[in-house]
Amino acid sequence: MNKHVLLTTTAVIRLFGCEKIEVTKLPPWDNERMKEVYGGKGAGLIRMADYLGLPVPPGFTIPVQFCEEYYANGKKLPRSLKREVRKMLKRIEKKMRRRFGDTKGWPLLLSVRSGARRSMPGMMNTVLNLGLNDETVQALARASGDPRFAYDSYRQYIAMYGEIVLEVPANLFTSALDHLLETRRIESESDLDADDLKALVEAFKNVVTDTGKVFPQDLFDQLMNAIVAVFDSWMCKRAVKYRSDIDRTISEDWYTAVSVMAMVFGNMDETSATGVAFSRNPSTGKRGLYGDWLPREQGEKVVAGTHETHAITEADRIARGSTKPSLETAMPKIYAQLRAHSDLLEHEDRDMQDMEFTVEQGKLWMLQHRKGKRTALAAIKVAVDMADEGLITEEEAVCRVDPASLDQLLHPILANPESMMNILTAGLAASPGAVSGEIVFNPEEAEKLASEGKKVILVRIETSPEDIGGMHAAEGILTARGGMTSHAAVVARGMGKPCVSAAKNMRINYADRSMMVGSFKMRAGSPITICGTTGKVFIGKVATINPELPEEYHIFMGWEKSFRQMRVYANAETTNDVRTALRFGAEGIGLARTEHMFFEGDRVMAVREMMLADDEEGRRKALAKLLPMQRADFKEIFEIMAGLPVTIRLLDAPLHEFLPNTEDKIATVAKNMGVELERLRRRAQELHESNPMLGFRGVRLSIVFPEIIEMQARAIFKAATEANFSTDKDKPVLLEIMVPLILSKGELDLVKGYIMETARAVEKETGIKLYFHIGAMIELPRAALLADKIAQTAEFLSFGTNDLTQATLGISRDDAGTFLPGYVKKDILPVDPFVTIDRDGVGKLIKMATELARVEWIRTDKIATIGVCGEHGGDQVSIEFFEEVGLDYVSCSPYRVPIARLAAAQATIGAIKGDQTK
Amino acid sequence: MNKHVLLTTTAVIRLFGCEKIEVTKLPPWDNERMKEVYGGKGAGLIRMADYLGLPVPPGFTIPVQFCEEYYANGKKLPRSLKREVRKMLKRIEKKMRRRFGDTKGWPLLLSVRSGARRSMPGMMNTVLNLGLNDETVQALARASGDPRFAYDSYRQYIAMYGEIVLEVPANLFTSALDHLLETRRIESESDLDADDLKALVEAFKNVVTDTGKVFPQDLFDQLMNAIVAVFDSWMCKRAVKYRSDIDRTISEDWYTAVSVMAMVFGNMDETSATGVAFSRNPSTGKRGLYGDWLPREQGEKVVAGTHETHAITEADRIARGSTKPSLETAMPKIYAQLRAHSDLLEHEDRDMQDMEFTVEQGKLWMLQHRKGKRTALAAIKVAVDMADEGLITEEEAVCRVDPASLDQLLHPILANPESMMNILTAGLAASPGAVSGEIVFNPEEAEKLASEGKKVILVRIETSPEDIGGMHAAEGILTARGGMTSHAAVVARGMGKPCVSAAKNMRINYADRSMMVGSFKMRAGSPITICGTTGKVFIGKVATINPELPEEYHIFMGWEKSFRQMRVYANAETTNDVRTALRFGAEGIGLARTEHMFFEGDRVMAVREMMLADDEEGRRKALAKLLPMQRADFKEIFEIMAGLPVTIRLLDAPLHEFLPNTEDKIATVAKNMGVELERLRRRAQELHESNPMLGFRGVRLSIVFPEIIEMQARAIFKAATEANFSTDKDKPVLLEIMVPLILSKGELDLVKGYIMETARAVEKETGIKLYFHIGAMIELPRAALLADKIAQTAEFLSFGTNDLTQATLGISRDDAGTFLPGYVKKDILPVDPFVTIDRDGVGKLIKMATELARVEWIRTDKIATIGVCGEHGGDQVSIEFFEEVGLDYVSCSPYRVPIARLAAAQATIGAIKGDQTK
Repeated sequence: MNKHVLLTTTAVIRLFGCEKIEVTKLPPWDNERMKEVYGGKGAGLIRMADYLGLPVPPGFTIPVQFCEEYYANGKKLPRSLKREVRKMLKRIEKKMRRRFGDTKGWPLLLSVRSGARRSMPGMMNTVLNLGLNDETVQALARASGDPRFAYDSYRQYIAMYGEIVLEVPANLFTSALDHLLETRRIESESDLDADDLKALVEAFKNVVTDTGKVFPQDLFDQLMNAIVAVFDSWMCKRAVKYRSDIDRTISEDWYTAVSVMAMVFGNMDETSATGVAFSRNPSTGKRGLYGDWLPREQGEKVVAGTHETHAITEADRIARGSTKPSLETAMPKIYAQLRAHSDLLEHEDRDMQDMEFTVEQGKLWMLQHRKGKRTALAAIKVAVDMADEGLITEEEAVCRVDPASLDQLLHPILANPESMMNILTAGLAASPGAVSGEIVFNPEEAEKLASEGKKVILVRIETSPEDIGGMHAAEGILTARGGMTSHAAVVARGMGKPCVSAAKNMRINYADRSMMVGSFKMRAGSPITICGTTGKVFIGKVATINPELPEEYHIFMGWEKSFRQMRVYANAETTNDVRTALRFGAEGIGLARTEHMFFEGDRVMAVREMMLADDEEGRRKALAKLLPMQRADFKEIFEIMAGLPVTIRLLDAPLHEFLPNTEDKIATVAKNMGVELERLRRRAQELHESNPMLGFRGVRLSIVFPEIIEMQARAIFKAATEANFSTDKDKPVLLEIMVPLILSKGELDLVKGYIMETARAVEKETGIKLYFHIGAMIELPRAALLADKIAQTAEFLSFGTNDLTQATLGISRDDAGTFLPGYVKKDILPVDPFVTIDRDGVGKLIKMATELARVEWIRTDKIATIGVCGEHGGDQVSIEFFEEVGLDYVSCSPYRVPIARLAAAQATIGAIKGDQTK
Repeated sequence: MNKHVLLTTTAVIRLFGCEKIEVTKLPPWDNERMKEVYGGKGAGLIRMADYLGLPVPPGFTIPVQFCEEYYANGKKLPRSLKREVRKMLKRIEKKMRRRFGDTKGWPLLLSVRSGARRSMPGMMNTVLNLGLNDETVQALARASGDPRFAYDSYRQYIAMYGEIVLEVPANLFTSALDHLLETRRIESESDLDADDLKALVEAFKNVVTDTGKVFPQDLFDQLMNAIVAVFDSWMCKRAVKYRSDIDRTISEDWYTAVSVMAMVFGNMDETSATGVAFSRNPSTGKRGLYGDWLPREQGEKVVAGTHETHAITEADRIARGSTKPSLETAMPKIYAQLRAHSDLLEHEDRDMQDMEFTVEQGKLWMLQHRKGKRTALAAIKVAVDMADEGLITEEEAVCRVDPASLDQLLHPILANPESMMNILTAGLAASPGAVSGEIVFNPEEAEKLASEGKKVILVRIETSPEDIGGMHAAEGILTARGGMTSHAAVVARGMGKPCVSAAKNMRINYADRSMMVGSFKMRAGSPITICGTTGKVFIGKVATINPELPEEYHIFMGWEKSFRQMRVYANAETTNDVRTALRFGAEGIGLARTEHMFFEGDRVMAVREMMLADDEEGRRKALAKLLPMQRADFKEIFEIMAGLPVTIRLLDAPLHEFLPNTEDKIATVAKNMGVELERLRRRAQELHESNPMLGFRGVRLSIVFPEIIEMQARAIFKAATEANFSTDKDKPVLLEIMVPLILSKGELDLVKGYIMETARAVEKETGIKLYFHIGAMIELPRAALLADKIAQTAEFLSFGTNDLTQATLGISRDDAGTFLPGYVKKDILPVDPFVTIDRDGVGKLIKMATELARVEWIRTDKIATIGVCGEHGGDQVSIEFFEEVGLDYVSCSPYRVPIARLAAAQATIGAIKGDQTK
């Protein structure tokens, strides 16, 4: 146990920004490798400073292996670390010409920052202004000529160090501050003078001492403790939760690097400033600098959302209607430099940049650069523009947009964006989309209500990483404070949720669960509508419509098509949904659930009649009522989808969904059917099932009551002959008839026989030759296991992954709420198998079945297709798997078609790349 | 279509009994091959006549290929057939010295019999006395000197030919007979004189003519038509139904042979007789001839059950209390010959014989021999005796008993066999076992009532092949007529159902649905008890007990053990069932369902409390009530099964089986728990599931509420330490803890952790070291697919084939009644997958899982077992499959243990043989 574990640490602590290095003498830049070793932040700093020659405050990065070693040795620091840090510190001092702990001149202050391979925004710790103690603060006061600045920095530093390194509860510092404000009758922090701040320093030191901790005056101890605190924060609760709940692709084994760098002071004087800038607009993707800055402030302030920020460009200032000067006008030289740096970084990274900068006494320092988060709209525009600019290839462009983010484009916007009816307030249009829901002030409550199926808008003064769960659960987010780059805005855009930030005149009272907007009071539970596209907030539910897709979208989706291997169909049966599907680029209908066509109005009554009839005659009578309606629907669908495949699934009505479940309904059905109430009640009783999902449904109904198939097939075939282009050779009806819940070849043979008989009859009646395929839905493990046999009869196969998952895992989605969420949390299952395909289990079956069917088809020279029509067909990770298995198509809900298309294209590109690296 | 299909018919029409042939000149006898070609009956005749030199009337057998060709050519006879038949006929004439169609001397008459590879008793057609027409009948009358005999034969022949060949409804002949009896005022058929019978011949001919058919006077036409009728009967409704419903191992492709042979006349005079004999007693297995005969009668009469038959041996006559002379005393020479033939046939066949014979004017003719059907008791005794006699090996003896037949030995007998209380009547003890049920007179009604779960006794005047379905459905069969070899007796023995035949003084009125026994009237629906072991019939339900097993049973089961590879465990949890299991030879408990221990009395209330509790404390309180009881049960089980493995499955309570489903029950639980009614009602509502089989059950409960495992494990371990031999090295507690409904390794790891923790705690408390295995139940397709992963943690695996079948096929057994029977009938599924394992689907999974687990265990040098504990563990066909897959054990209900043991032994022997022939 005492033996220190020495990992094979090949990586060394890496200095940056300390000397001019010939780039040619450096090893070539390997971005991925550097990120693995030095974390995203560290790699960015090293690159900017040493590879690109940008002005970066000198510093060094401790690679992740040190953190790993720290944990491997029971939280003991690697032996060499202290010595190395001292050595590095010397280099920084030399470069900055300031000394760490200098009690005479301007003392060197440091920031200590975390940074893993990928960003976990706000999850881990950062310590700023490290290097202050009772002596250096005096030196800082003298050197800067501004004691207020010095003591303000010092008291903030004590609080920050206290909270992060010593784990003193933050509210103790706030209380001490409040106490001082009260006793000295000062209204706001900004009115504190140097003496007040000196007193506050003492008060804060007492806070620390009262908790039994010690605020060290030894500066090197401060530094080493801060490094340990960053290491520790890798395993802090919220970071662990983030990795387990929000982003499961971030591995616990990655660990964090630590970057220590010289502080520069954006709050030093009028020629100082701080800001966050994007190389392109993260909402729209428009080219050109975009962002927020604050004169005479330190960096955290811009991101915290506690201040109204200034626009970077003049154009943006005007667009915002802000009176605060833009960086472009206030500091034109700095603006020009920033723009040049931005262009360089974008060119090097070949992607849009998100940069933090500080101006200290007229000198621009770059503090961070990374790939900029962006809306889907922006992502598409950026990708298309960059491809046009020749910066990236079309293939790269296709991979640059997160398929899931397209969801944002497909969601509604305000029906009347100009309307001011019922307007409550307006704020920044932080993340696009319009959405309604009831007000919730508390993130936990948002999660609870959402789990009960309610739509909620999370309303917060500002959001913090602790709110992530609630933000996930909410339809949209509304905050009283914050800029375009505030936590709420960044996270909401990432999630594709509408967000309005910095809503005007809004005061929130968490305790009272209410908010005042001007003099208008709204309570939790009241409905509101927010529009993250325009920034408007409305009282009540406001009408929304589907957005127009921008030109770049169509260009982009044209590109994806050329790379994609799988076709993407839609699951749709109403003419409305079929039209939407086509508009979103569906290449066919993969699943038209005929029973869904029965859910409305009179139709459901007729279905009940059919199911409750106790003889064939009764069933035929009811079917005769249903089928003219269905035939008309089919005809319309065939016409809309002219020339594209339309897969119609035969009736798959689980009895329990259609049986009348109340006395009233039974009475109505009895009346309609003209049968005794008692008889019908008895029949309903007979048909009751203890496990309807495992009961008399799917093809089983048709086997027992073949008249159902006969009449359905007739409706389908007649519709096909009536569709007005049926004889048009260019756009024929491509009819695929799918049989649900197949468990053996015998079933399919029987049903095929019935269908063929009806087809021949309709051909004879109409004189029109019918062309169609008959296929099976693979929803039962047995069907998957015997796919080769079924493939002998089937002309296509389609996995119904919802039911297949249900049967393979023995879990009904409806009943899983009691245990399934816990299964994912406890890592018993890697994912919710109803969201993302269970690769190990269900996936194995799918793979087996696909191989069995393909071999059979190849053996008999049959051309047949195999696809997926469960909800997994629209899930990105599942689509990758389907590509890997080699399916021909996925079919998903119309709104997910663009997502599936893009995901499928990326899967193909990924697969090809994967092949090349093999 | 017009092209005649010529099959590669290598088999030829085979003459027999026509000339003395040197056996050494014949090819060696290949019984299986001969049966395949000439059918069971034909092969038997050829063998007796030509290989064994027994007196067989001359004849010839048309091999099955001719029948196949007949069907292949759209029911056209093979071209060569007529010519061949003519040729053969000549040979018979020569041998019999009678001429077919002789109008002067005694004309040759023929029988035309069906005979497939295996017997389908009574399913196909036979035509007797063929060769009579208006002229030959006169010749027969003259030659026999008995016109009554001649015309009686002729009128019977016309009716038989009419019914079978011409398809004239049989009742038309009965009506004509009744009419004649009435007009001539004659009471019974036997009182008809020659003139009456001549008139009847004319009446019967008119019956035929009235239906537009022609009774041919051309005798060769008669013969060829009869052959066609036999071919046709292969596909007649009842034969098809027999193959699809009763014996699915008989293939439609086998077709039937036709044996044509000279008639001999048991009804010629006082020195003539007919009978059926067994080489050993088919009820008890006792060595020595046994059977029935009738003097001066033709064969069908003995089997038809319309006459009281005579005993063959004198001892049997005395045992029956019959006054009719035995064959042994009436015809001592014939008896001695028959005995010698019987011994020879038994020696040659190395099995018990069932023989038909006829004595014509003092000459014994053998008409048929085959393996004798027998009760399980007889089968065991015969097998053990024959092995002792050196006729067969022990291995063969083990294969001689149908495992399913053992069921008969395990079923109850009368508690007091001597009692005459409530006795209704008595009859022949036709098939052993005592059973109660309500009277049903109609076979269809028996099927219907049985399907509703009622126990019925089928009561018939006599049974016929049409009644098979009803006999299957009934608990037992009672007939008013028939001997020990009547249809009812033979079939009931085959089915292992108790049967009393020829019940005295019993008159049945089908129309009135009642019967009179003497003057006592009983109606359909009244309860009776029949004892097929003693022949008694009682009014009402009479107490029964489990039988003593005979000495031979134990010898036999000692032999099976030495051949068997798989171990046989029992599914049992009550101490009563565990004792029964041990008595029946269970080698362990493979499944003790702990939740079944909760079904009674107070316990179920406590389970409800546990499930409805909304916090851990509430659950612990309820568990604390349950576990002392369970611990006591466990202790007793461990003591009974000392030294044998006991597999205890952790709680697997599907919520819906335990939730209170009425307001009353909710109220009681609420009172017991001391909680508000409303709160409990709400909780019950919350826990309601739409598909409980796919819900919160099995290990899922324990994952969410680990206290259940903790307390169950504690009860198990404490019981193990308390079992009074726990420290006995010879008979230790062999504890296996099984976790139900596993779907991933993660679940098992978690649960194993909890169990180990509790084990360590109990070890500490008691100072006793605990040894046990932890295993997983494989009930979900996913678990089977990932068996290698699960096997990493599991120390044994057990397939729960009921649930595995349910999930793989997506069929809940409870809800399958609406469609599953039709699936088997329509051949969509080869068998009811809940009775016999679905090889193709579920079987594939089991095979995969077994291979995956074995490879994992071999890889890691782990010794672990894999078995089955579903109901399939007691099904013979399934057991063959499990042997093939290489499982270590099967576990089944206690009553099926002997069946499973024997089936497993036979499977091993079969597998070894299979290997040798490879």
